[in-house]
Amino acid sequence: MSLVVVGSVAYDGIETPHGRRDRILGGACTYISLAASYFTKPSVVAVVGEDFEQDDYNFLAGHGIDLGGLDRVPGKTFYWSGVYSADMNDRTTLRTDLNVFADFAPKLPDRYKEFPYLLLGNIQPSLQRSVRGQMNGLRLVGGDTMNYWINDYRQELLNTIREWDFLLINDSEARLLSGESNLRRAACRILDMGPHTLVIKRGEYGAILFRKDRYFIVPGYLLEDVFDPTGAGDCFAGGFSGYLAQQGLDIHRCDIEPQELHRAVIYGSVMGSFCCEMFGVERFRTLTRQEIDARYQEFKRFTEF
Amino acid sequence: MSLVVVGSVAYDGIETPHGRRDRILGGACTYISLAASYFTKPSVVAVVGEDFEQDDYNFLAGHGIDLGGLDRVPGKTFYWSGVYSADMNDRTTLRTDLNVFADFAPKLPDRYKEFPYLLLGNIQPSLQRSVRGQMNGLRLVGGDTMNYWINDYRQELLNTIREWDFLLINDSEARLLSGESNLRRAACRILDMGPHTLVIKRGEYGAILFRKDRYFIVPGYLLEDVFDPTGAGDCFAGGFSGYLAQQGLDIHRCDIEPQELHRAVIYGSVMGSFCCEMFGVERFRTLTRQEIDARYQEFKRFTEF
Repeated sequence: MSLVVVGSVAYDGIETPHGRRDRILGGACTYISLAASYFTKPSVVAVVGEDFEQDDYNFLAGHGIDLGGLDRVPGKTFYWSGVYSADMNDRTTLRTDLNVFADFAPKLPDRYKEFPYLLLGNIQPSLQRSVRGQMNGLRLVGGDTMNYWINDYRQELLNTIREWDFLLINDSEARLLSGESNLRRAACRILDMGPHTLVIKRGEYGAILFRKDRYFIVPGYLLEDVFDPTGAGDCFAGGFSGYLAQQGLDIHRCDIEPQELHRAVIYGSVMGSFCCEMFGVERFRTLTRQEIDARYQEFKRFTEF
Repeated sequence: MSLVVVGSVAYDGIETPHGRRDRILGGACTYISLAASYFTKPSVVAVVGEDFEQDDYNFLAGHGIDLGGLDRVPGKTFYWSGVYSADMNDRTTLRTDLNVFADFAPKLPDRYKEFPYLLLGNIQPSLQRSVRGQMNGLRLVGGDTMNYWINDYRQELLNTIREWDFLLINDSEARLLSGESNLRRAACRILDMGPHTLVIKRGEYGAILFRKDRYFIVPGYLLEDVFDPTGAGDCFAGGFSGYLAQQGLDIHRCDIEPQELHRAVIYGSVMGSFCCEMFGVERFRTLTRQEIDARYQEFKRFTEF
C-alpha cells in the first residue's frame, strides 16, 4: 500500500577511499523511495530545480515511484558534497548549497492525503509536522531526524515526534535526545516522548528495535567492500517502512506480531547493506527483489543458533 | 571434561565511573576459570606470591576449580591498576608490577598432561607454545593474545597459533595481525595462519565467529549498567571453551555441527555480560547456572526473527 515519503532530492559530490563522484543523484527522499520501491509504492514529496536531469526522473519513475509530489521550481537542485575518512566512519561536509530546498514547503497532492503510510525524512521538524497534519486516515507514521534539530529545535522536534509511531535515529542522536549514554535507558526515555517504536541505527554494528516491553538486535551485514556509505541509513528507513507498508501493518494495534517488526528491521538492514556496495544510488540500477530475499536468508543463517 | 587454563592470576586496582576498588582478585586465568567452571572442570596453571589470600584461594576452589597447578612462590602477586574513561570504551594503565609473574615458566602437573582441552590466556607466545608442547592427546586447543605480542613477537606468535584450533582476539588485534582493515578479509587471512576457527570480540557490539566456509555474528547484550568491563573478554573465552569442553567436542572434526560453535559463542557472550555487572569477579560469588541459561534464552528472544 502507498507510502508517502518526504525529504530531500539532491545532487551529491562524494569522495571515499574508493574514488570520487560529482553531481550524482542523492538525498534522503531519493534513497528512502528507491529502497521502499522493492516492497511498496512510494509517493514522493520533494522539490528540485530546473537542472534536475530527465534521466534521474526516469530512473525513479522506472522503480514505480509516484512523482506526482516532486515539485520542479526555478533555481538549482540542493547540492551537497563531502569526503569520508579512511575507515569511512567519519565524513566531513565540504559544501552545502540548499538552493531550491531553502524554501521547501511540502504541499501534498490531494490524492496523497488519503494514503495510509508516511515516512518523514530528515528535514526541519515543523515541516515534518505540517505534512503529517495534511494527511487523513494515517495508519502508520514515522521518521528520522538529526543532531542539528535535536540541539537547536528541541521543543519543535518534541512536538513533532509526539505524534509519530516510530522514530529512526542513530546511537549518538539517541544519546543526545535522551540525555542518557546507556542505550537501554536512552530508549526508555525516548519511548516516553511519544513513539511506541524506536529503531536505533548503529552503522556497521547493525540496529536495535525497542518497544516498551521488548527489544530486538540485529548485527550489521559484513561487507567485504564498503564503497560508499552515503544513504545507508535512509535505505534502512526505506526497507523498514516499505516492508511494513507491504504487509499492510498498523503498528498502532497492540496485537501486532513482534516478529513482523523484527523482519522489517532485517529488510531495513538488507537495503542499507546493498546501498554501500556502489557509489550513490548505483546499486539500485541492477538490484532485484530476489537478491534482497537471498540476503534476508543470509541474515537468518549467520544469526541463528 | 577437564580444561587446562593458563594465564595470570593477579590483584587489580580498578577505577570506573561507578567507583574504585583496590587489590581485588583478577587476572586472565582467574576470569577464564571462573567463567568456565559453570560448564566444566578448569585446571589452572598460574603463579602467585606469598601475599595471595586464603579467601581468594577458597573462592576459586569453591567453584570446583582444580588448583593443583597454581604455584605459590616467594615474592608478591602480579599487580595491575587502571582507570576507565567515562564511556568505559578506553582504559589507561596506571601501574603494572609483574612481581612473581616476571619469571612465570608454566610447568604442568603430570596429571594435567592427559587432559583433552587447553585454553591459553594472553601471555608470551613462547610460553603458550611450551604449555601446548607438554600436553599429550589434546582434542582442542585455543587462546588469546594482544597487540604487544602481535607487534613485537610476531614470528613467535605465528609459530604458536599455527598449532591452535581457535584464536580469540578483538577487532583491532585482528586488523593488526592480518594487516586488513575489513573484518571479513582480516578473518580470511588469519584462518590461513593455522586456526580453523577464529572468534573476533567486538566489546559492547558482540562477537563474530569465522570458519573457512561460514560465519556467525552475535550482537552484544544490552546491559543497563556496566560497572566494570575488566575481564569480560576472558569470561567470553571461559564460557566459549567451557561450553565446548562440556559438550566433549573436538572441533578438529570436519563434521562438527556448526550450531554447537554458535551456542559456544552465545555462552561466551553471556559470561562476558555477567562479568560487567559488578566489580572484578564479584558477580561470580552469586551467579548460578540457572541465571546463565535464562540469559542464553534471552539472547534467543532478542535475535530471533
